[in-house]
Amino acid sequence: MDYQKVLAEIAAELQGIENIGKVAAYIPELGKVDPDKFGMHLLTTDHRHYSVGDSEERFSIQSIAKVMMLTLAFELEDEKLWERVGVEPSGTNFNSLVQLEYENGIPRNPFLNAGALVLCDILISRLSNPKQQLLDYMRKAAGNPDINYCPRIAESERLTGFRNTALVNFMKSFGNIKNEVEVVLDFYFNLCSIELSCRELTQLCLFLAADGVNPANSERIISSRKSKRINSIMQLCGFYDEAGEFAFRVGLPGKSGVGGGIIAVLPGEYSVAVWSPKLNQKGNSYKGMRALELLTTKTKSSIF
Amino acid sequence: MDYQKVLAEIAAELQGIENIGKVAAYIPELGKVDPDKFGMHLLTTDHRHYSVGDSEERFSIQSIAKVMMLTLAFELEDEKLWERVGVEPSGTNFNSLVQLEYENGIPRNPFLNAGALVLCDILISRLSNPKQQLLDYMRKAAGNPDINYCPRIAESERLTGFRNTALVNFMKSFGNIKNEVEVVLDFYFNLCSIELSCRELTQLCLFLAADGVNPANSERIISSRKSKRINSIMQLCGFYDEAGEFAFRVGLPGKSGVGGGIIAVLPGEYSVAVWSPKLNQKGNSYKGMRALELLTTKTKSSIF
Amino acid sequence: MDYQKVLAEIAAELQGIENIGKVAAYIPELGKVDPDKFGMHLLTTDHRHYSVGDSEERFSIQSIAKVMMLTLAFELEDEKLWERVGVEPSGTNFNSLVQLEYENGIPRNPFLNAGALVLCDILISRLSNPKQQLLDYMRKAAGNPDINYCPRIAESERLTGFRNTALVNFMKSFGNIKNEVEVVLDFYFNLCSIELSCRELTQLCLFLAADGVNPANSERIISSRKSKRINSIMQLCGFYDEAGEFAFRVGLPGKSGVGGGIIAVLPGEYSVAVWSPKLNQKGNSYKGMRALELLTTKTKSSIF
Amino acid sequence: MDYQKVLAEIAAELQGIENIGKVAAYIPELGKVDPDKFGMHLLTTDHRHYSVGDSEERFSIQSIAKVMMLTLAFELEDEKLWERVGVEPSGTNFNSLVQLEYENGIPRNPFLNAGALVLCDILISRLSNPKQQLLDYMRKAAGNPDINYCPRIAESERLTGFRNTALVNFMKSFGNIKNEVEVVLDFYFNLCSIELSCRELTQLCLFLAADGVNPANSERIISSRKSKRINSIMQLCGFYDEAGEFAFRVGLPGKSGVGGGIIAVLPGEYSVAVWSPKLNQKGNSYKGMRALELLTTKTKSSIF
Repeated sequence: MDYQKVLAEIAAELQGIENIGKVAAYIPELGKVDPDKFGMHLLTTDHRHYSVGDSEERFSIQSIAKVMMLTLAFELEDEKLWERVGVEPSGTNFNSLVQLEYENGIPRNPFLNAGALVLCDILISRLSNPKQQLLDYMRKAAGNPDINYCPRIAESERLTGFRNTALVNFMKSFGNIKNEVEVVLDFYFNLCSIELSCRELTQLCLFLAADGVNPANSERIISSRKSKRINSIMQLCGFYDEAGEFAFRVGLPGKSGVGGGIIAVLPGEYSVAVWSPKLNQKGNSYKGMRALELLTTKTKSSIF
Repeated sequence: MDYQKVLAEIAAELQGIENIGKVAAYIPELGKVDPDKFGMHLLTTDHRHYSVGDSEERFSIQSIAKVMMLTLAFELEDEKLWERVGVEPSGTNFNSLVQLEYENGIPRNPFLNAGALVLCDILISRLSNPKQQLLDYMRKAAGNPDINYCPRIAESERLTGFRNTALVNFMKSFGNIKNEVEVVLDFYFNLCSIELSCRELTQLCLFLAADGVNPANSERIISSRKSKRINSIMQLCGFYDEAGEFAFRVGLPGKSGVGGGIIAVLPGEYSVAVWSPKLNQKGNSYKGMRALELLTTKTKSSIF
Repeated sequence: MDYQKVLAEIAAELQGIENIGKVAAYIPELGKVDPDKFGMHLLTTDHRHYSVGDSEERFSIQSIAKVMMLTLAFELEDEKLWERVGVEPSGTNFNSLVQLEYENGIPRNPFLNAGALVLCDILISRLSNPKQQLLDYMRKAAGNPDINYCPRIAESERLTGFRNTALVNFMKSFGNIKNEVEVVLDFYFNLCSIELSCRELTQLCLFLAADGVNPANSERIISSRKSKRINSIMQLCGFYDEAGEFAFRVGLPGKSGVGGGIIAVLPGEYSVAVWSPKLNQKGNSYKGMRALELLTTKTKSSIF
Repeated sequence: MDYQKVLAEIAAELQGIENIGKVAAYIPELGKVDPDKFGMHLLTTDHRHYSVGDSEERFSIQSIAKVMMLTLAFELEDEKLWERVGVEPSGTNFNSLVQLEYENGIPRNPFLNAGALVLCDILISRLSNPKQQLLDYMRKAAGNPDINYCPRIAESERLTGFRNTALVNFMKSFGNIKNEVEVVLDFYFNLCSIELSCRELTQLCLFLAADGVNPANSERIISSRKSKRINSIMQLCGFYDEAGEFAFRVGLPGKSGVGGGIIAVLPGEYSVAVWSPKLNQKGNSYKGMRALELLTTKTKSSIF
């Protein structure tokens, strides 16, 4: 498959369309990005790289980091993890709090903020130095020693993080947060602050397209069975209230972030990252979703 | 792959476990079934049949028929279909009515009862003789002239169908039902009444594993693109509030019915049907889900 | 107290203000009314009548009829009534269906449509000729043989009554409707169709200001204890999602209807009816509420 | 009216019935109380005192303090108060968070925890020394210099106050909390910690039975109009999800607390306080409600 040609076609087609949507601005740092940035990178499991646009420029990966929180927490807790967080899609945002109440403080899935906060709590209980150890785990998965938290963004998250503070306290009232509220939030805000390029993202997540192994060095990140399960959770829960639309139009497991990035994988074939800061009404990158839809249409590579 | 050996192993393993759950009894007809029935049939896209247990015995397919309503409605309406029904998972049952109210009478997906009732309404508007024409469409897809409605079950559904009557009236108050309430319900209750065996079900749905073509006679049932999209909707919405669990444990697009049947497909490879009447708390066949989990584990055939 | 002077002042003050709001138009018959009509009538427990404006003109009392359904059903069922309907305010309309689901088909109070439909069901079970007998009961309470159903409005209600049909079917699925859906709805639509003038309304409801006795003929309509309880339900549930606002501004038990009428009582003193067809966003008569607020302010006659 | 005889009868009748319910134990301090305590005190607007049982013993008034928060905030803010908190009953607890979300962080009424937290925030913005000034205000209203916060209980509240912390943060995310989260919570937990006897409570709230004036010294606490409005809010919102039941059975405006106390007023006549620690399922004192029901039945003193 001539992926380079396909990426070039996609970039050309998307240049012709109006760049609809809004850059996330709930924290000032995110609002400063150039809204017309566009990058895309595809990395095959046999180490071929294809890219177009601003694919080497770093951006705030935000919720995409939840994939790595989940991977490490699943590795450490095994099936016991599911006693504290579910694997079901959540329906509308509107219902998120009432569902948390109805289900006694157990978030429906690990990619909701509530779910990721529980993952943070679990990692804090399990690890002696959670911030450093998660960073090390990501560096190993990516084969990239240059992954770091961004204190400026983490601080900006903290200053406006009232809803996340509400969520942690609410879950703590149900007993589903074991550590200090402040410690959980600090870990969470740091995780959301990581900045990576499209190229780096594809390296970080390639193991999910390769049955749990990083093909670059044959190092196993997670078991084959767990790798499939993480993919299934991405498929059903990776795009807020638009998971169905993404499955319908793109047909790959993936995860988006409000920084405008999306990572997706075609098991056995490739990981692909795209970045375009303007978000649609559901909070997913407008051009990013279009780019991935064009990719799977042109290459007939939906998992369905 | 020696699927026959795998099916035999599955049947043997499941015989050893307790048959948990309850047979659906909301209509008397369903409650009469022998709870210990178990059948499974796998049909590859190159026409090889494998089976075990009561795979030739007919049972009430119930909601599995919604797959064919969706296929025909999508074929007739194309993308306009999505103005009247969504493609997103629904979250808990508990929220179904409030979501319908919140979203102005537009059901979140075609596999909710509300969604299937809208499909019925669309088919009634589009077809001159909807009951006969849908039957013909199913017969063609299955290569099986012996598919029929079961008036006894349809009548039993009608007599206890107060919730479905509530749903149709509620949606009509929003303008999302165009035809007479009684006509829509009659069509719907008939569609739920169809009885098929596991073998017949795999034939009926094989086109979804074969890019929209019935491989038996090379007849196209629906376009390749639409076939993928139906699979994506099955993946995200096919198991009530357990879609995530099914994706997580089984990893195939599929659809269950309260008669205890499940159909699933591995694109490019096979369709598989399983039947065991006892349902778990979420309304899906307890042993049926276990059987499919064993199948994809033993054959490493999850789509993820 | 010179009530006549007070009513004249109220009418004069209200003439000066903009007539905000919208006439109910969900059935065509209601939409035909002159939006600038305004009438008010006050009847003391010692038989003095005071009136202003269009107080002799009949209008559709709509939900105000629920007060009489409740009175008769409470008389017939006694405390057993509360097994099938509650006495709590309902919160936002938005939650009405989910609450009905959460509380297993038991409406939160008798003045919700769902609650009034249960009252109809109870009256049908209890009475040999419910339509005639309720009419007779109202005629007795009012001392007015000229109270009748309006078939034209009842039919108009029926033609657009999809939500009420949904509610009855939904409650029947929980077992809280015992009679045929069509029979319940027919009774309900007829009850909503009654037309009375402000003068007639004050006569109909005077017993609620007089401890359950019609002072005109000393006939007991309901026990003193039950009369107080009906007043308490009107106070807490009589104004849709604006009961708090009405209690806060007016301070009398009362009930409104979408025809623009409101009845209220000051126990021991008077009943008062007001009519102005334009409704505020919560569905209560805009000028009607203002008029009653002026009344209790000028006469210092809030129950609080 | 021989209130002393009535109180004695009530105490005798209640001694004969089983003391159903549970003492609140969400903070350890509350759980230590003797569950069989029972006290009742009635104070008329012309200064006659009647009492029975443990009416001189202090208990934790908890949410009853919200009445005084509301009185002072209403006095300071006038009608602008209602831009930040509503006057409508809230429906089931179950919906409280989703309603807060649906209504953009505006609590439905001042007696919900969320509403009282907004009152605290308002008082903090308005007063130079809010803790001292509210205490002074309560002392003045009660004519009792011996009203104090209980640091032991306030601290106990703080240690388990995760839900209240969640609520404040959630409302702050909507902009409806202006001050620091910690400061608002500290004020709130102190207000909930006040301990008073039944006798003291009747003195504190007598102004609500006397058109806003403390009859003991003719000092005006709040205007007549505002006094009526506070009563109307107590009537509709004073008993969690049991306001309708209380209005129905007792028929007086009032407010309960999880310490087992209830205050109620009959405008123009008396204030009455009752204390019995065991709570029914809705969180209101079981014997306290029974006692007040007997009081208004025996004395025919419902406001309806």
